[in-house]
Amino acid sequence: MPLGKAAASGIFARQPGAARNPRDLIFGWPKKRFSSERGCTHTEAGGKSHVIEKAWTLLNSREVSDHRIFRIRDDVYRFEPSGRERDFVVIQSPDWVNVIPLTDDGQVVLIRQYRHGIRSVSLEIPGGIIDHGEPPDSAAIRELREETGYTAERVRLLGRVRPNPAIQDNYQYCYLAEGCRKAGDPHWDPFEHIEIVPRPLADIPELIRSEEICNALVINAFYFLATLPRQA
Amino acid sequence: MPLGKAAASGIFARQPGAARNPRDLIFGWPKKRFSSERGCTHTEAGGKSHVIEKAWTLLNSREVSDHRIFRIRDDVYRFEPSGRERDFVVIQSPDWVNVIPLTDDGQVVLIRQYRHGIRSVSLEIPGGIIDHGEPPDSAAIRELREETGYTAERVRLLGRVRPNPAIQDNYQYCYLAEGCRKAGDPHWDPFEHIEIVPRPLADIPELIRSEEICNALVINAFYFLATLPRQA
Repeated sequence: MPLGKAAASGIFARQPGAARNPRDLIFGWPKKRFSSERGCTHTEAGGKSHVIEKAWTLLNSREVSDHRIFRIRDDVYRFEPSGRERDFVVIQSPDWVNVIPLTDDGQVVLIRQYRHGIRSVSLEIPGGIIDHGEPPDSAAIRELREETGYTAERVRLLGRVRPNPAIQDNYQYCYLAEGCRKAGDPHWDPFEHIEIVPRPLADIPELIRSEEICNALVINAFYFLATLPRQA
Repeated sequence: MPLGKAAASGIFARQPGAARNPRDLIFGWPKKRFSSERGCTHTEAGGKSHVIEKAWTLLNSREVSDHRIFRIRDDVYRFEPSGRERDFVVIQSPDWVNVIPLTDDGQVVLIRQYRHGIRSVSLEIPGGIIDHGEPPDSAAIRELREETGYTAERVRLLGRVRPNPAIQDNYQYCYLAEGCRKAGDPHWDPFEHIEIVPRPLADIPELIRSEEICNALVINAFYFLATLPRQA
């Protein structure tokens, strides 16, 4: 409740005298240039910067099952600090894409659909699996068109994340589509059933806070949008 | 590059005359109160608000494999619009937790560890699986202590997400731990090997932009931190 109110009234704006809020430490501090320290040389362990990279030796890898939209792989590693072996399960998927579709009057073209993982309806942005060999931006445009019937004037990459580095091997690409307008009917696959729900962009923080938007990968896209640089 | 610069110099601050940036539409607009419209009644389909909820009927559910940290389930549904049946695979996991550990001098206690999903080292915040029956905040405190050796003065919930509503059934809880200080040695499990890397909170946007921090669930935690309301 206070979050929603604050978020919508310019929560990201820096306000003097509010330095007790840890959020101010992120976006209120003077820029410390990010230089050659990318390898995280600042470590309490001191001098151990490269140990982590060499802690694991892959001994074997085999696919154990195929579930259509992902496959399960078992990797066997030797843990060098102890010499012991252990297997790790990995969910192999193609890369995924999602896209924030923005209309010229400031609406986000959200979609509602039943999600079988949570056995409930979820409010999201369009997205899906990138086809083999398909450029990620083409996939964003295609998913937007197929799921909503909207086209965009321009699409740009907001950012890219790893859905779960511990157990998944794929990327999620997040795009922004601007100048969106309805161009025709959606083209759903035989098991798709989607409700198209334009909402003002200003409502997004409250929709996330209230968990009506709960999909981690959708929230990632809005993180990137919120940190988008000024246009020249 | 421009994103990093902008982010660290107060990118979230609202600036007049920059209304062409779609980001401003999120956090710069007057608050539209979020009232009884939670059910997304504003829909182009008009009057179909409840159809989505009733499109799928669960017919059968069976566990097909156990992979220690998750299990695979197959759910069979009837798709009511066509009457056809289809199975959907679900990754069942306990709920997860992560925590942004903040020291009094504005450092985030990040950790680096090898992640077997991406076969590479990942820069993250502490976190893990919530034990059966364990309160999420206790799990946050426990993971912080085990992985880093740090304790916190206070811990509070930032938000909760669904890692992947389409194919996963669990929640991810995101916490903020303030007043963190080193209290002893970490307690790693026999296959954990972690480098503790305190970094200024102001560096986080650039670490995400450069993909040094790439974990979607970590970025969710920082989304919530960035939208944290002012403290009274």
